[in-house]
Amino acid sequence: MFFASDNSSPVAPEIIAALSDANAGYAMPYGNDAIMAGVRARIRDIFEAPEAAVYLVATGTAANALALAICCPPWASVYCHRNAHIEEDECGAPEFFTGGAKLVLIEGKDARMDPAALDRAIGFTARAGVHNVQRGMLSLTNVTENGTVYSLAEIQRLTGIARAHGLPCHLDGARFANAVVALGCSPADMTWKAGIDVVSFGGTKNGCMGVEAVVIFDPARAWEFELRRKRGGHLFSKHRYLSAQMAAYLRDDLWLRLARQANAAAARLADGIRALPGADLLHPAEANMVFARWPRSAHKKAQAGGASYYFWPFDQTLEGPDDEPLSARLVCSWSTTDADVDAFISLLGA
Amino acid sequence: MFFASDNSSPVAPEIIAALSDANAGYAMPYGNDAIMAGVRARIRDIFEAPEAAVYLVATGTAANALALAICCPPWASVYCHRNAHIEEDECGAPEFFTGGAKLVLIEGKDARMDPAALDRAIGFTARAGVHNVQRGMLSLTNVTENGTVYSLAEIQRLTGIARAHGLPCHLDGARFANAVVALGCSPADMTWKAGIDVVSFGGTKNGCMGVEAVVIFDPARAWEFELRRKRGGHLFSKHRYLSAQMAAYLRDDLWLRLARQANAAAARLADGIRALPGADLLHPAEANMVFARWPRSAHKKAQAGGASYYFWPFDQTLEGPDDEPLSARLVCSWSTTDADVDAFISLLGA
Amino acid sequence: MFFASDNSSPVAPEIIAALSDANAGYAMPYGNDAIMAGVRARIRDIFEAPEAAVYLVATGTAANALALAICCPPWASVYCHRNAHIEEDECGAPEFFTGGAKLVLIEGKDARMDPAALDRAIGFTARAGVHNVQRGMLSLTNVTENGTVYSLAEIQRLTGIARAHGLPCHLDGARFANAVVALGCSPADMTWKAGIDVVSFGGTKNGCMGVEAVVIFDPARAWEFELRRKRGGHLFSKHRYLSAQMAAYLRDDLWLRLARQANAAAARLADGIRALPGADLLHPAEANMVFARWPRSAHKKAQAGGASYYFWPFDQTLEGPDDEPLSARLVCSWSTTDADVDAFISLLGA
Amino acid sequence: MFFASDNSSPVAPEIIAALSDANAGYAMPYGNDAIMAGVRARIRDIFEAPEAAVYLVATGTAANALALAICCPPWASVYCHRNAHIEEDECGAPEFFTGGAKLVLIEGKDARMDPAALDRAIGFTARAGVHNVQRGMLSLTNVTENGTVYSLAEIQRLTGIARAHGLPCHLDGARFANAVVALGCSPADMTWKAGIDVVSFGGTKNGCMGVEAVVIFDPARAWEFELRRKRGGHLFSKHRYLSAQMAAYLRDDLWLRLARQANAAAARLADGIRALPGADLLHPAEANMVFARWPRSAHKKAQAGGASYYFWPFDQTLEGPDDEPLSARLVCSWSTTDADVDAFISLLGA
Repeated sequence: MFFASDNSSPVAPEIIAALSDANAGYAMPYGNDAIMAGVRARIRDIFEAPEAAVYLVATGTAANALALAICCPPWASVYCHRNAHIEEDECGAPEFFTGGAKLVLIEGKDARMDPAALDRAIGFTARAGVHNVQRGMLSLTNVTENGTVYSLAEIQRLTGIARAHGLPCHLDGARFANAVVALGCSPADMTWKAGIDVVSFGGTKNGCMGVEAVVIFDPARAWEFELRRKRGGHLFSKHRYLSAQMAAYLRDDLWLRLARQANAAAARLADGIRALPGADLLHPAEANMVFARWPRSAHKKAQAGGASYYFWPFDQTLEGPDDEPLSARLVCSWSTTDADVDAFISLLGA
Repeated sequence: MFFASDNSSPVAPEIIAALSDANAGYAMPYGNDAIMAGVRARIRDIFEAPEAAVYLVATGTAANALALAICCPPWASVYCHRNAHIEEDECGAPEFFTGGAKLVLIEGKDARMDPAALDRAIGFTARAGVHNVQRGMLSLTNVTENGTVYSLAEIQRLTGIARAHGLPCHLDGARFANAVVALGCSPADMTWKAGIDVVSFGGTKNGCMGVEAVVIFDPARAWEFELRRKRGGHLFSKHRYLSAQMAAYLRDDLWLRLARQANAAAARLADGIRALPGADLLHPAEANMVFARWPRSAHKKAQAGGASYYFWPFDQTLEGPDDEPLSARLVCSWSTTDADVDAFISLLGA
Repeated sequence: MFFASDNSSPVAPEIIAALSDANAGYAMPYGNDAIMAGVRARIRDIFEAPEAAVYLVATGTAANALALAICCPPWASVYCHRNAHIEEDECGAPEFFTGGAKLVLIEGKDARMDPAALDRAIGFTARAGVHNVQRGMLSLTNVTENGTVYSLAEIQRLTGIARAHGLPCHLDGARFANAVVALGCSPADMTWKAGIDVVSFGGTKNGCMGVEAVVIFDPARAWEFELRRKRGGHLFSKHRYLSAQMAAYLRDDLWLRLARQANAAAARLADGIRALPGADLLHPAEANMVFARWPRSAHKKAQAGGASYYFWPFDQTLEGPDDEPLSARLVCSWSTTDADVDAFISLLGA
Repeated sequence: MFFASDNSSPVAPEIIAALSDANAGYAMPYGNDAIMAGVRARIRDIFEAPEAAVYLVATGTAANALALAICCPPWASVYCHRNAHIEEDECGAPEFFTGGAKLVLIEGKDARMDPAALDRAIGFTARAGVHNVQRGMLSLTNVTENGTVYSLAEIQRLTGIARAHGLPCHLDGARFANAVVALGCSPADMTWKAGIDVVSFGGTKNGCMGVEAVVIFDPARAWEFELRRKRGGHLFSKHRYLSAQMAAYLRDDLWLRLARQANAAAARLADGIRALPGADLLHPAEANMVFARWPRSAHKKAQAGGASYYFWPFDQTLEGPDDEPLSARLVCSWSTTDADVDAFISLLGA
């Protein structure tokens, strides 16, 4: 009953096995390994983007911060949701890698940016010319930080606003697979066909050990990415082990199968919680995360029974009236089983 | 016959196995895994430094650049050898992570800094007060970039010069194990007992997949390191797999055994080359690297026979007079066998 | 009838004269001129701060950005009002000079930070430890960007909240003299006695040509300031001409006389506007700026009559219904005369 | 007898007068003043560059660092002489403004870069692709830091080497006027006709109070310059006083007259020193600086007699044998008179 985070899950066995398989003999370092050539081709194929530049790094923060840095100069704005991972959870990595760009925070329900708010914010930027930080780029996240999923139309609407001002668009896809599964769309549908220029295509949270692809649809930005990756300490010498993870992740649609399991577990979990007395969901549970609220007494039972998850926000405690509702974030991963979910719901409802 | 780089070697089987072993169930992310607690204790023990802060990152460039950044403000100098990895091979990562510090290049034979040159350079720095970049820190590398090894007395002499000016001292130990084996000393001897404040303790080149420890003897610098690591995108969510590599690397002195094999192979290789007509070594081969020169005709034979290595400098070619000597860098690793070496020497001498 | 900005005013004749007076013979450069010694002593005296470090720069943006940079590390937050000059009008200079700190925007009426909002924002910061940007510092502005003036109690309340978390406090005093005159307090009252650690003490907007003092109450921060100033290109070689401006500005309380004239003109202006039909003030006019609203027809008359000022916000135009109210910012300076004000009011009311 | 630096001289009376003249009424801020329009036109005319972008800042370090920043990305090299002002005297401003570019130091006699050394350095750069800092730009200084003057052919040779690699070229012209006078060439000859892309056109050392023009021959780089200038705190609100200085400086060839006086004084000084027993010049005195060596006894007489200058290097002292030669830097300015020079020579020869 571990729902604290998808990054606490183990690695899928297919991916662990791939590391062993890759471990034979010598291989060219720094991305020149043979496995990477296959990964590059496979990702271009999956994204229907034969010209795309494809790079691997080991953390989501690196993927995002490097992606932003090739799109946004130091004196410009990155428009993102107020709760975006790049704003809240990266200790200023975007500012560091861009050389001091400004994150402009857009409001919106369920961690989805409100298009009107985005439009206003862009319009307000640089109204006094050189005195202001300039308009830079859009960064949106799918699956969002609240477990909701932007529809293709919603993405198009937001990127359309940005592109009307000539701004490039980044998608933080730390949970890319979960979003694709939720939408039943293709990777191309959710990215370049919807106005996205650069994608952080996550693997780590969905069963890999530590690998994220950055997919750059305009290859003119590629060389700068390579230099920034190296300069940021994110170019792996023994790169074949990043390649091997990603190759296994993409083979036979493993990435989609893992995400389907995570999403299905979350749906089962949301259903179970909704059925409990005094419980409700804080946001629609559209992918692999459930944000919900239920009485403190049931939290006590869950935690006494060994369930692991975070209060959301963090500063709630088990001290207090039994019937007061406390809110929580529950994250399912590829390794969450129906039995885990059912055991958890039983604890809550006991 | 692969001598191009130690980073092209595979991962030692013990370390691959450790990844599988670590892959059971859920684990706390971001360095809070149980394996890391053991790694921290083990490194403190190995270094005889019970208070040291210990962190893991995945690349040597990250280890170095973060180590420099916690020791040197943006307006100060990092004194290093002209051929130091931080100067030549990191695409400016030190400048990026420090916020623009200046690498001041010290000459010295065989990639060992000349103490008098270091002393002069420090003395020259900041002679005009606020107008100049200030004195920052010393960074030295052992094993050096030329395959030589600083003796303990040499390290002490250099750090003594720096410390006389109150400057902290960093050791780039990308090949730390090879140096310790070469010197027959303890990790403490080569570091804090010799005046070193922060160490990049390499694993990747010596049989790991991608893990380096940064050991900080003054724990007052630790929190800043943690923030810079996170902000640099170098904090791993599924950190247990870094921990597991390092745990296996240190278990039963595997790290020393792997380095011994690499050093022994290089010694055998150096002996073999020295015995060839028209060949000589460019630098003493004191650890796992051999820099040597031999006639073009023998290079042709080696490369035709499938040997892999780099010309050093790169811009030499197989075109030209047969008897002209060309210089090369040959790197041995934990996986280099006596048979590899002997086959290579046979090719050269054929 | 020029109310566009106080930075469009000429230089007070006493200050122009001082430049000529300083122009005799040779003088030591870079702040070692004799005039600067007097300026330093005078500012320490005015601020009742005998240990304070005092530096001159030529622009308000330089003063602010350097002041922030010595108080806030790259991975921390600067709490400021949403409309602060450092947020809205410096093209990211704070991010540039701090190395990427994050400005956290605090709401509050009339450009005064709401203490409860500040408290919440600080409390929210770094709730997830290393994953978040850390708590850095407070920066407040007096006179505020809306022409209001924080009372001493209001300043103390805000700095008290910051200091309870150990955070240093900066005061952007681009219109410091106007605030002191408005409050009838001493410089010490408004700064260190109210919890301020570093002040940007403005001269340029109040009759100087281009000079701002940075007053640092804790001299331990002084040397870093000097290095950052030089590195930022803000250390003047012919520094005596900065010193001379500041010396003249402080001599015989010129700075206070100039500010009194500006504030009095603004009060007269506010009174005049308030008396017009269909006009009202958007914010209390407490110093030298008036934010007001009146019908478009009167704007047409004013502008036809040669009055110069900005619509606030900028995107309003003279096209539209005559009776629709348009809002404007009117800034008075030391050189604004009663006749200017009266002529302007006559135009509006004609 | 003040030869310490040209930045210790007073301001030319024509320029002081221009400040008073500019001080009438209101003026648009931030470079939109009417005087600036004239300055822009005049500089374009002087440089025979009708499309050039022209900006003013107040310090030479700002001019240089901003000029470098628009030409060189953070991951690239600036090739400059080992003794260049940007390397030795700006406390790392180039690193700060470029975001961490690396200054690669080129040797050469008399502070003139050796073309072969430049060629080798460029050739060596980026030999390992992404692992290395990339080739960025050339920056040369005329008048050089040793008081010599590059001929037009020498400039062309160096820029030719850089341009063959596609690299832009910057000229640090802190003493631009002195160089033009020494060469008897036109500003265009020494800049764009000789391969220069961006010039720091100095005013401060040659009789201004604090103003430098940056002239950018390719207007495509202009907007980035404006943003970086603002973000660096170098955009003046009361800009008319920068404009007024530069306008007066250029009017009726004042800039050339001032430089002629400085150069003539230095020539007279060099002649006088050369005639002294035991004295010689360290570098050819080709503009307004004299580097010379003469016995300690004569230094004692000069300093006792009130002469002011720097030992070069700094660390020599009056303590020691009388006949030991000590070396010095002597700088003449527009305000150095023949009488000053003669009095100084008399002291030395007494």
